[in-house]
Order: sequence, then C-alpha cells, then structure tokens
Amino acid sequence: MREVAVLGVGCTRVGELWEKSIRDLIFEASREAMDDAGIEGIDGLYVGNMCSGSIQEQEHLGALMADVLGLRGISAAKVEAACGSGGVAFHEGVKSVASGLQDFVLVAGVEKLSDTSTADATASLMMAEDAEYSAFTGATFVGLNALIHRLYMNRFDVMAEQIAAFAVNGHNNAVNNQYAQYRSPTTVEKVLASPLVADPIHLLECAGTGDGAAAVILCPLERARELRVHEVITIAASSVATDVFSLPEREDLLSFSASRMAAEQAYGMARISPQDVDVLEVHDAFTIVGTISIEDLGFVKKGEGAKFVHEGNISPDGKLPTNTFGGLKARGHPVGATGIYQIVELAWQLRGEAGKGQVDDADIGLAQNVGGIGSTVAVHILRRSR
Amino acid sequence: MREVAVLGVGCTRVGELWEKSIRDLIFEASREAMDDAGIEGIDGLYVGNMCSGSIQEQEHLGALMADVLGLRGISAAKVEAACGSGGVAFHEGVKSVASGLQDFVLVAGVEKLSDTSTADATASLMMAEDAEYSAFTGATFVGLNALIHRLYMNRFDVMAEQIAAFAVNGHNNAVNNQYAQYRSPTTVEKVLASPLVADPIHLLECAGTGDGAAAVILCPLERARELRVHEVITIAASSVATDVFSLPEREDLLSFSASRMAAEQAYGMARISPQDVDVLEVHDAFTIVGTISIEDLGFVKKGEGAKFVHEGNISPDGKLPTNTFGGLKARGHPVGATGIYQIVELAWQLRGEAGKGQVDDADIGLAQNVGGIGSTVAVHILRRSR
Repeated sequence: MREVAVLGVGCTRVGELWEKSIRDLIFEASREAMDDAGIEGIDGLYVGNMCSGSIQEQEHLGALMADVLGLRGISAAKVEAACGSGGVAFHEGVKSVASGLQDFVLVAGVEKLSDTSTADATASLMMAEDAEYSAFTGATFVGLNALIHRLYMNRFDVMAEQIAAFAVNGHNNAVNNQYAQYRSPTTVEKVLASPLVADPIHLLECAGTGDGAAAVILCPLERARELRVHEVITIAASSVATDVFSLPEREDLLSFSASRMAAEQAYGMARISPQDVDVLEVHDAFTIVGTISIEDLGFVKKGEGAKFVHEGNISPDGKLPTNTFGGLKARGHPVGATGIYQIVELAWQLRGEAGKGQVDDADIGLAQNVGGIGSTVAVHILRRSR
Repeated sequence: MREVAVLGVGCTRVGELWEKSIRDLIFEASREAMDDAGIEGIDGLYVGNMCSGSIQEQEHLGALMADVLGLRGISAAKVEAACGSGGVAFHEGVKSVASGLQDFVLVAGVEKLSDTSTADATASLMMAEDAEYSAFTGATFVGLNALIHRLYMNRFDVMAEQIAAFAVNGHNNAVNNQYAQYRSPTTVEKVLASPLVADPIHLLECAGTGDGAAAVILCPLERARELRVHEVITIAASSVATDVFSLPEREDLLSFSASRMAAEQAYGMARISPQDVDVLEVHDAFTIVGTISIEDLGFVKKGEGAKFVHEGNISPDGKLPTNTFGGLKARGHPVGATGIYQIVELAWQLRGEAGKGQVDDADIGLAQNVGGIGSTVAVHILRRSR
C-alpha cells in the first residue's frame, strides 16, 4: 500500500452565504486547493455531503463537481455518513491513492444549510439518527445530545461551567481565523447566559448552521516529495468505525465506542500514542460532544474531560491545543464539509502556516469527525514529513 | 494493486414491497450474500443508495447497515451517484480490497421507492439531473429521455418498433427470474400499444419504480481461490467516468461520452475488446438508453443499435445475450441497487448458475450502470477464473 500525502488545501469562509450556491462553494474551495497544490491534473473526485438532496433537491454531486471544475470525464462519487461525511469521504480518497489506482485525488466537502428554514434544517440533520426508532419519537438532534449532557453532569458530578468551557476555547481561537463563522470571543458566563436550546444545552454550546466548502488534494508521498510545493504532510493513519445506530439502544451513552475504535486503529497505524499528538481537531457539534471526544480519543480518563478543558488544557498554550481555528462551534459546521475543514486546518498547522493560531513545533495532528451521535467516527492522523 | 474476486452474491425480489423497510431489504440481500460466500467476517461496508433521504427521511445508511448486520464497529460508507449509485459503490469496494486495506468487503445497493407517491418519486429521481439549470425548467427525467428518443429516431431514421424491441427482450428474459418485478413476456405490438408517458416513450419502455436490495462480497483473488466456495469470478476491470452534468449543455445528446470513456478504460484494464464479451448487463432505464448504451460500449456503430436489437441479436441465443435476467425494464430498477443486481446476475452467469437463462460458455461479462442521463457511468468487467 502506497503512502499518501496532502498536496494542497483550500476552503471558503463559513457563514450564511446567501449569494453562493452549492456549485459556487465547491468551485471556490476546490480551485483554492488546486492553486495551493500547483496542479491542474486530477484523477478522481470525492465529495462529502449530507443534505443537498433534502435542501437543494440536488443529488449526484460527484458528477456536478467534475463538471463545475472543468474536469469532464473524471471519476467522481458522493460519500455520505451524516455529519461525518467529510471525514469518510477523505478516508475513501486516501484509500484510492493508496490502492495505486489514482495518483491525484481531490476530496471536497460541501454543505449549504441556509437555503431552508431552521425547522427543515433541523429535520434534515435528524436523518443522521435512526428514522424508525429514534427520530420517530419526535426527538431532535440537540434534544438527544441534551440527554447525554445531563447524564454526564450527573454521573461524573460535573458543573455546567466546566462543559461550557469547550465553546469558549473555540470562540477565542476563531478570532484569528478569516474563514470562521463566529469571530467573537466569549466567556463561560456569556455561554451560560445564552438561551437554553434543549436543557441543559445553551445556544452558545451548539455549532450553528452555516454554509461552506473545503477541499484537499491527495497524492502519493513520493510525488509530494518531488513536487515539494509546501512542507510535505503525510497521512499517518486513516480509520473509520461505527457504533450501534440507534442512540437509545447503546449500552453507554457517555462513551462513543466508534471514537475509541477508530482512534485505537489510527494510533496503531501511525505507531504513536495520544501523548504524541501536538494539535487536535475534535467534532464539537455540542460542547458535550467535544468533551466526551477528548476522553474517547485517549487524552484524559472518562469523566475528566470537562475538568481538563475548564482548566485551560486545550487552549493554544495548553497541553493539548484543540480546534485552533475555532472548531465546529466557531469556525462553523457546514455538515458534510466539516471533516475536510479539519484536515485543511491541520495541514496549515503542520506546515507552520496557521498565523496567530500557530502551535509551536506541531509535527503530528489528529482529526476526529463524527457522523450522527457517534454512529460513525473517522479519525485521521497527519504528520509533518521531515 | 491486488486482484479482486467476487466471493458471494445475494438479492431480494424487486417489487412494491410494502411490508419491508430499507433495513429489511439490506438485511435480506446481505445475509444471502454472506451465506453464499460462507463467511461471517467482514472488514468494510459500502451501500449504494440515492433517495433514502428524500423518501425515508433516513441518511447515514452505512452505519445503519453495520448495525442491522450485527457488524458493529466496522467501517461503512454510503456512496451516491444517482441511478449509478450501485455501480459506483461497487467501484469503491473494489478499490478498497485492491488497496490492501480491507480483505472482505460487502457492497450492497438498496432503494425503496414505494414509500412515497409517484409524483414525489419522480421529483426525487430528478435530483439526478441539474437542479438549477435543468430540473428548474419543469422537465421530468422521462421527459428529457423522450427528447433523446425522438432525436435518435429522426437522426438515424429509426422506427419506434426497433427501439421498443429492447423492452421485449427484457420482459421475455425476466420470465425465468424469480427475483424479477415483471415476469410477463411481451411483444413489440403490446409495448407500442401501451400509453405514452412522454411522447415518444411508452409506459412499457420505462423501468418501473420498485423496491429491492442486492449485495456482493468481494475479497482478494488468492483468498477466493483458497476458499473456493464457487467458481472464482475476478474483477477484470472497474471504471467510472463522468460527462457534462446538465443535459442541455451536451454537444451530442445521442452518445454518452461517460459510457465511451468508462468502457474504453475497462477494455484496456481487462485487455479485451467488445467482441470478447459473452454476456452483457446494460442500464435500460428507458429503451432508448439501453439502445444507445450498446452503441457507446462499442458493440455496434452509432445509429445501428436499434436495428441490432430488433433483429434479435441481444436475445439469449443471439450474438450478444443482454440483460438475461430482465434488465432494469423487467427485473426492475430499485435505483441505488440496480448496479449491484447487475453484478449479482453476471456472477450467476459466469458461475453457470443462471438456470433457464444460462448463456453457454459464459466466461466474460460486462455491466454498465448509468447515473443521471449519462452523467456518471460505471463499467465493470467480470471474468471466470479457470
């Protein structure tokens, strides 16, 4: 199996981009990635997306993307795994280059949620959970996460402040990210003073709905070394795992076994341990999901995540700089694009191009992208190649 | 790159399966494929599907499928390329085994169109075409195909009877297929006496809407040789190509360049020419699409497909036995499953398990699966390994 490297990256700003279509977003991010890589020739395309069918009445984004980019004839596929669509599409792109069948593969993620009402967007996102046994009850996505949030507080005797701290880190980091949706710093007090969306989850603990696209170009490691456009970043591990689909059927609501499994596999592939990770991207769709993820990825013991975050350990100058561009909370969460934004941001960190958010001597980055409430988890480990 | 083989196949009957859910269909087809392969251990899942979001309000079918099959933890992804979702999912499965990352991969396709009204199913299927520049005009999928059908008749001076013959072949072949939706034989006269759906396309020239699932288990060729559960069938070629996305922008409406490109690549990979193909599966969503496909795949010259079919050349005892289980027209067309049904049926032919529809000495089979109106085409060549 061939080693795979990141050759170029690009993304759009995240926001309510009324003036831009799915087409525009895909084009902008992909074009930026192609310019960043300095190449025009692409062998294959993947696009991660969840809701274009229900919101834009447009499926078949693979062929659409090939056409938009003027790459007519090229093979293309849409990959979907709910909010984990980007991470899973990236995994498929890595496999394609690793297989030797394709050399230069462009993986994009795109989502445009602002084309519909909040109610319809909420319904579309609930398609990530089990329609027959879970959505059927009338529960919303944030409602199910609120059950987890409450249970976590009770079982581990955790304060609301400690969980809310996750959002503060994201907002403070996004200030320096020109692509972020929310560039305003915040405080634990402000988060807890924001309206309750689903008790005990406050508005400022939820990733907002937004539009955006991100793109990465992959190629064989040896080609990246020859071309040497940037610092060479290798994919040290690419792993996807799944969990019991319907949340109410899980044995333990406070641990996502797919995160644990994907992480374990990834650490094995990269031959590292969690202590070796210099910069982390986790899927903080809600503060509680970010908190639990840090535990499941092996950085702290179960039940200690909130305390760890609240003590400042995930801030840029902490032990484990996390979501340095704002994370889902503040960079924004254009569902199917989120997993690709994470890769783009890790690449910037490992190249030393992260600007004011730069983590010193960042050699190894880990990205965790979640589909549904932990039903699918993609874990990628990127490494700067010396 | 490792060679890949088909280890097991399975499918459900196609029909209006009111009593079965998406879950049931996936389970039934996958369980049959696992039993057929004689294995329980699977490393990865792919599922081809187009409309579960818009019709069942259920996305995230990869994780759902892992759960349904009791394969918790396993990596899984949904792959979508409109009506070509099955073929493209299969292509991803082949790449995954070829890469060496996974050994036993289950690729399923599923669709359940009967859960909604005909009008809503029609709207869902139109998501295969360009929403902004094509669907926006109010055109339906059959309406656009009718333009092609009329133009073909005019340009090549072809009679309605000659194009209708494609449907007759499918219906007559489906009589012996226990999984087929329409097992009634028909005649050119009956086809042309059926109501016009979109002039000049008659009802009996269209694949109906139906529900179904099909599944294939792939593994490395050497493992298939060791296990030797059945005749060993290798994937001699796997290719996907795309075309201009919006039909009105195409230079030539009467030739699908994605078909030509995918076929050319596939013949090169398999080192064969069209004359070597013993049994063919083409995507006859409409009689005109089947007719044009036979031309684009290189079996006859442009404009001669209808005459070739009308003269009986694609019948079981003709030069090019085609859609021997009924094709999309009569076996049925559960959109995202169709590309997998084609592979299942080719495997049966190459193993010599095709019953009354068996083609003598079938060594090489080709399947062509189309997404949209030729926007994506997947071509696979299967070969019996002696």
